[in-house]
Amino acid sequence: MDSLDAYSTCPRLRPDTLVRLGRVTTATLSMQLLKRGLRHIHMRGPRALDSSRAKFVGEAFTFCFLPLREDLGTLDSYAKPGSMREAIEDMPPNRVAVIDARGETGCGTLGDILILRMRQRGALAVVSDGAMRDVAGVRAVGLPVFCDGAAASPSIGALVFAGWEGPIACGGVTVLPGDVVAGDGDGVIVIPRYLADELVEAAEEQERFERFVLYQVGRGAPVLGLYPPDEDALEVYRTWLDAGEPEA
Amino acid sequence: MDSLDAYSTCPRLRPDTLVRLGRVTTATLSMQLLKRGLRHIHMRGPRALDSSRAKFVGEAFTFCFLPLREDLGTLDSYAKPGSMREAIEDMPPNRVAVIDARGETGCGTLGDILILRMRQRGALAVVSDGAMRDVAGVRAVGLPVFCDGAAASPSIGALVFAGWEGPIACGGVTVLPGDVVAGDGDGVIVIPRYLADELVEAAEEQERFERFVLYQVGRGAPVLGLYPPDEDALEVYRTWLDAGEPEA
Amino acid sequence: MDSLDAYSTCPRLRPDTLVRLGRVTTATLSMQLLKRGLRHIHMRGPRALDSSRAKFVGEAFTFCFLPLREDLGTLDSYAKPGSMREAIEDMPPNRVAVIDARGETGCGTLGDILILRMRQRGALAVVSDGAMRDVAGVRAVGLPVFCDGAAASPSIGALVFAGWEGPIACGGVTVLPGDVVAGDGDGVIVIPRYLADELVEAAEEQERFERFVLYQVGRGAPVLGLYPPDEDALEVYRTWLDAGEPEA
Amino acid sequence: MDSLDAYSTCPRLRPDTLVRLGRVTTATLSMQLLKRGLRHIHMRGPRALDSSRAKFVGEAFTFCFLPLREDLGTLDSYAKPGSMREAIEDMPPNRVAVIDARGETGCGTLGDILILRMRQRGALAVVSDGAMRDVAGVRAVGLPVFCDGAAASPSIGALVFAGWEGPIACGGVTVLPGDVVAGDGDGVIVIPRYLADELVEAAEEQERFERFVLYQVGRGAPVLGLYPPDEDALEVYRTWLDAGEPEA
Amino acid sequence: MDSLDAYSTCPRLRPDTLVRLGRVTTATLSMQLLKRGLRHIHMRGPRALDSSRAKFVGEAFTFCFLPLREDLGTLDSYAKPGSMREAIEDMPPNRVAVIDARGETGCGTLGDILILRMRQRGALAVVSDGAMRDVAGVRAVGLPVFCDGAAASPSIGALVFAGWEGPIACGGVTVLPGDVVAGDGDGVIVIPRYLADELVEAAEEQERFERFVLYQVGRGAPVLGLYPPDEDALEVYRTWLDAGEPEA
Amino acid sequence: MDSLDAYSTCPRLRPDTLVRLGRVTTATLSMQLLKRGLRHIHMRGPRALDSSRAKFVGEAFTFCFLPLREDLGTLDSYAKPGSMREAIEDMPPNRVAVIDARGETGCGTLGDILILRMRQRGALAVVSDGAMRDVAGVRAVGLPVFCDGAAASPSIGALVFAGWEGPIACGGVTVLPGDVVAGDGDGVIVIPRYLADELVEAAEEQERFERFVLYQVGRGAPVLGLYPPDEDALEVYRTWLDAGEPEA
Repeated sequence: MDSLDAYSTCPRLRPDTLVRLGRVTTATLSMQLLKRGLRHIHMRGPRALDSSRAKFVGEAFTFCFLPLREDLGTLDSYAKPGSMREAIEDMPPNRVAVIDARGETGCGTLGDILILRMRQRGALAVVSDGAMRDVAGVRAVGLPVFCDGAAASPSIGALVFAGWEGPIACGGVTVLPGDVVAGDGDGVIVIPRYLADELVEAAEEQERFERFVLYQVGRGAPVLGLYPPDEDALEVYRTWLDAGEPEA
Repeated sequence: MDSLDAYSTCPRLRPDTLVRLGRVTTATLSMQLLKRGLRHIHMRGPRALDSSRAKFVGEAFTFCFLPLREDLGTLDSYAKPGSMREAIEDMPPNRVAVIDARGETGCGTLGDILILRMRQRGALAVVSDGAMRDVAGVRAVGLPVFCDGAAASPSIGALVFAGWEGPIACGGVTVLPGDVVAGDGDGVIVIPRYLADELVEAAEEQERFERFVLYQVGRGAPVLGLYPPDEDALEVYRTWLDAGEPEA
Repeated sequence: MDSLDAYSTCPRLRPDTLVRLGRVTTATLSMQLLKRGLRHIHMRGPRALDSSRAKFVGEAFTFCFLPLREDLGTLDSYAKPGSMREAIEDMPPNRVAVIDARGETGCGTLGDILILRMRQRGALAVVSDGAMRDVAGVRAVGLPVFCDGAAASPSIGALVFAGWEGPIACGGVTVLPGDVVAGDGDGVIVIPRYLADELVEAAEEQERFERFVLYQVGRGAPVLGLYPPDEDALEVYRTWLDAGEPEA
Repeated sequence: MDSLDAYSTCPRLRPDTLVRLGRVTTATLSMQLLKRGLRHIHMRGPRALDSSRAKFVGEAFTFCFLPLREDLGTLDSYAKPGSMREAIEDMPPNRVAVIDARGETGCGTLGDILILRMRQRGALAVVSDGAMRDVAGVRAVGLPVFCDGAAASPSIGALVFAGWEGPIACGGVTVLPGDVVAGDGDGVIVIPRYLADELVEAAEEQERFERFVLYQVGRGAPVLGLYPPDEDALEVYRTWLDAGEPEA
Repeated sequence: MDSLDAYSTCPRLRPDTLVRLGRVTTATLSMQLLKRGLRHIHMRGPRALDSSRAKFVGEAFTFCFLPLREDLGTLDSYAKPGSMREAIEDMPPNRVAVIDARGETGCGTLGDILILRMRQRGALAVVSDGAMRDVAGVRAVGLPVFCDGAAASPSIGALVFAGWEGPIACGGVTVLPGDVVAGDGDGVIVIPRYLADELVEAAEEQERFERFVLYQVGRGAPVLGLYPPDEDALEVYRTWLDAGEPEA
Repeated sequence: MDSLDAYSTCPRLRPDTLVRLGRVTTATLSMQLLKRGLRHIHMRGPRALDSSRAKFVGEAFTFCFLPLREDLGTLDSYAKPGSMREAIEDMPPNRVAVIDARGETGCGTLGDILILRMRQRGALAVVSDGAMRDVAGVRAVGLPVFCDGAAASPSIGALVFAGWEGPIACGGVTVLPGDVVAGDGDGVIVIPRYLADELVEAAEEQERFERFVLYQVGRGAPVLGLYPPDEDALEVYRTWLDAGEPEA
């Protein structure tokens, strides 16, 4: 039985939430989550395979691997019911595939063929805390792919596929199906689904203020007193806002 | 969806299988599994908390934790539906509780109170790849407990309870509900359920032969030629068997 | 400059705080700290060298090592101003020596001679996230000593002594001079100094309630509903209290 | 008390030392330090964030973090006396900021705003054994930045700022304020301050000889006998020098 | 005595084996090895220093380092009989230098001078599970070099050269002299020498089939039923082959 | 080819060297080695399996394992020429078996049968940086055995036997055949063979002086000025020696 079902069955996100979240950085979102008491939301391990394709935001569709057991991780298992191939067909479009590979970097979680099929199924991005294989081919597919290195071996070299759409851990972070996942050059973070709408506005305001801070620091101001702002800084900020964010 | 359900829904074990498996060592069982192509069956991490209470064999009842997320790992979660407390009430008697703690040793997976309740529920042993807390109290309960050290913090210090009776990993080994789990001074191993009956006889024969080997080596014989045995050694073995296993 | 000075210059502890804290377990204190939002207080690494001498509570006196640099970690350095030997003479009685060894287990942080001197200086216990050397001799001194294994090499085999009574990390936990440190079979935890008085009562009440829980569970009650207690359980608890904690 | 103060209060460097050290590689300097018995001078972890901005040499200004404790690592702490912001204002121009992040890669030690302020304050480079955040923005600042990956979370996600200009460890190497720090494609090394002047000449001579070696090896000579040179090789070297280092 | 000599003294490879192996990916070869029961053939650690020079296949010539012991890892040792310099002169042309550096990344296994000499000696590639130094110079040499990062220190900073052409481990994989080693963007794998000829045809057929699969998936086919292929898929494949592999 | 042969073919040890080394601690020997510039001589990993049987000194006989490759680590390999069984028959009496298991703790390097045979062959002790199996049986044999934990699997579960009496690493320390190896409660250290005779006297004198130091510290003296001793302390020491080491 899964104990965390309640958390992932939240109502729909507001229509513009994902688009707006996609305009802010994971660093900004991270700070907003920390302000709400959430520190364990940054994945360790997954990095963009192609740094020019690192930006994404979307709802998680989860996949789960377990450590290799030779009787389970057979070539036959690729064609059996409950295989990764079947799981991919079950994934709706516009999802981020998030894969719990138990941090195993000695085999490729996926290769070019399955990643290509994911793109065809409308996936927005693929995130794994394991490695990928055929990375030249994977890059050619053109999806944002985050992983922890490359390995030639197929997944059954070190892993067994164990299921999908349950709660998982990826890069040390717990992810529930439907949570919002965001990535960029700083890596991948997880936003609990029920917080996504709430975070948008605060994140946008934070970035507006940080544009002001960068503008001031670029002109020689110390950060002390400016960010977090004291009363004087806040007044200058309001003036800067009224002036239409000059030179930002 | 779980992909490995088929493997754990095997028929009943033969009535004497568990008793007879309990008379051989995990080292012996390990060798028999290796002969059948299974190398990934020894858990790394779990050790007996009390070396005088390290011997057990039984069918696995699985529990699963995920990494802490502050919104999920709350004090309230202890009393919610789907808690570890509820899972324990769901466990039939004569099971081995096997806990996937993601190898997290910075908090105690369980403490004396829940281990005591497990004993009351008829558990045969408890295995976790995380730490335990209240270890003085846990030892006092008297169950065989295997874990990776001690930690004062409660489980929500670093983990979130995520469910039970699904496929898990413990100490790097995949365990399905109903698999046979065995422990002793060499640690804990997993026997795929469908292999348990088959293993009994071969394991007993191996231990009989090894008693002969130890007897011979104790009298000065080299191991070379003796184990694995050449033709001469096999003949001496047969004579020794006919003689009723003298001095073994 | 140290940034955390303000936190360690708190007023005196109440006279009975340390004695009363010494009667509860680190598991209990850990839970009380977690209720106050503190999860990073359990050290990873330090374990009692002698399990029969694992219980202590006291105010921290901190020592700090850095990684070996061959020009600094010389035999001469043992006799120079600012050596560990001088630092020990600076330690008032009734303190717990807490040593930041950067988790280096390839040399002994201290050996029997310095530990003996610490006992003579009135130290209550010694905690290091590195190893100890001469562990037979160290055990003979009779102080509670917590460390991460044994190593024959002297400290300058892999470390350089860097100072004392500043903020340190030990076992991954930040410790300020004057913080309260407590140890037992579950390892070592840190209580921020300003919280020590406040924790005493809550910890005692928690242990009283857990005696009741163990009593009930020992008689067959499930933990669900009992701990955390629902209304019924609270009423039974009050009755049990009124009856003078029978059979606990 | 710091025990290593004496080592960092050396006299001024010769005026051209830093410029000349900037013309040799860290590999060369490493060899010269090893010849003087110093092996523990190469940092593990820090790599250039931008490989085209990896070359720097300068005097260290040190910063120190400790592991997160939730009561110390608050948002308020950013604005308190003793904050990182204040420390940066205390840093003289033409220094290399060297940051002890305890190897914590689960949060960003610094982001674009503070790195920009450091550039404004005249910093030559920034070195941390933790991660950076806002790495796109950090790259845009244009300073040489060495770190161990990227992480979206702010520093208080996993660290607490603890002070500046004391002895620290970075990447497993002990660094004292004023030590000379040098970086390039091979990473970052530390030169004890009192050795910097002495190293310059030897390093320059080593690189001259290695140009000769590369020239000879490029023309088919084996390295055996050439480097380290036997008598014949030394004579050829002198001739090559006299000829004005042809074709090097 | 070496116990594995028999395995590396196999007959010559077929003349076109290496050329044809060089046309398939390590991912393909990995799958063929797994089909023959070999999972432990992918090295962890070595990555291409220069991603544009990552493709190679050749017979291994092995080198072996051990951990530093200060009496063995002296500057003198560079010129002594049995040095790395001598070993390089012993290497026939058209070999891949495979170096067991015990995974030590705190020093450079080799630098630009020795790598240049290896190229002059006809080496096809260099693989180490340690770091390299002078990496700018190493890149300039132009050989495919696979290693685990960069470090300024010379090899005797942390290692001792121990011999050549014996059995070694590199990146956790056992390599015998004469085994076939192959590298590309997925890293480095080892093909037991006696299997190299046998693998060629199967690998080529696998890649032909995968071109068909990518073609089908690119046109919208699910992978389920296609790879591994069911009867229908096999028929479509045969038609596609008869048609001359259209649009692949 | 092995490069380190010269170091292990030293002349015989003085007849009483091993006996006298057996009377001092590894902590003392470690300090003497450090005084001679040797820091990398303490093994990380091996601990006494039975703390009451931890004391030994003897000349090393080396064994070497490599990581599992499924074609080499077969059950057949146990009976082939070059097996561990053959190597044991090649070991002269009064040696310490030192085993390079590459730090692999996922299988047992040896079990009770081979350890029993080693005892019969006159081995003084067994040291491995891997695990042991059948540890109950191993303990019963009665030899000092140092290893890094227990594991049920046979060696071919994760390792391949690769040879004997060559240079190896064990616990991160380079060991040549014939080096002197010593163990006690602080673990295992290696003394280069050519230094063993030289170390004896210095070690004995050090322990004499440390008995004096412990005597003084036990009577209330600070360590500062006493060890290392200033002139006054040396004079008191000489008096104490003249008085026949009272109360030590």
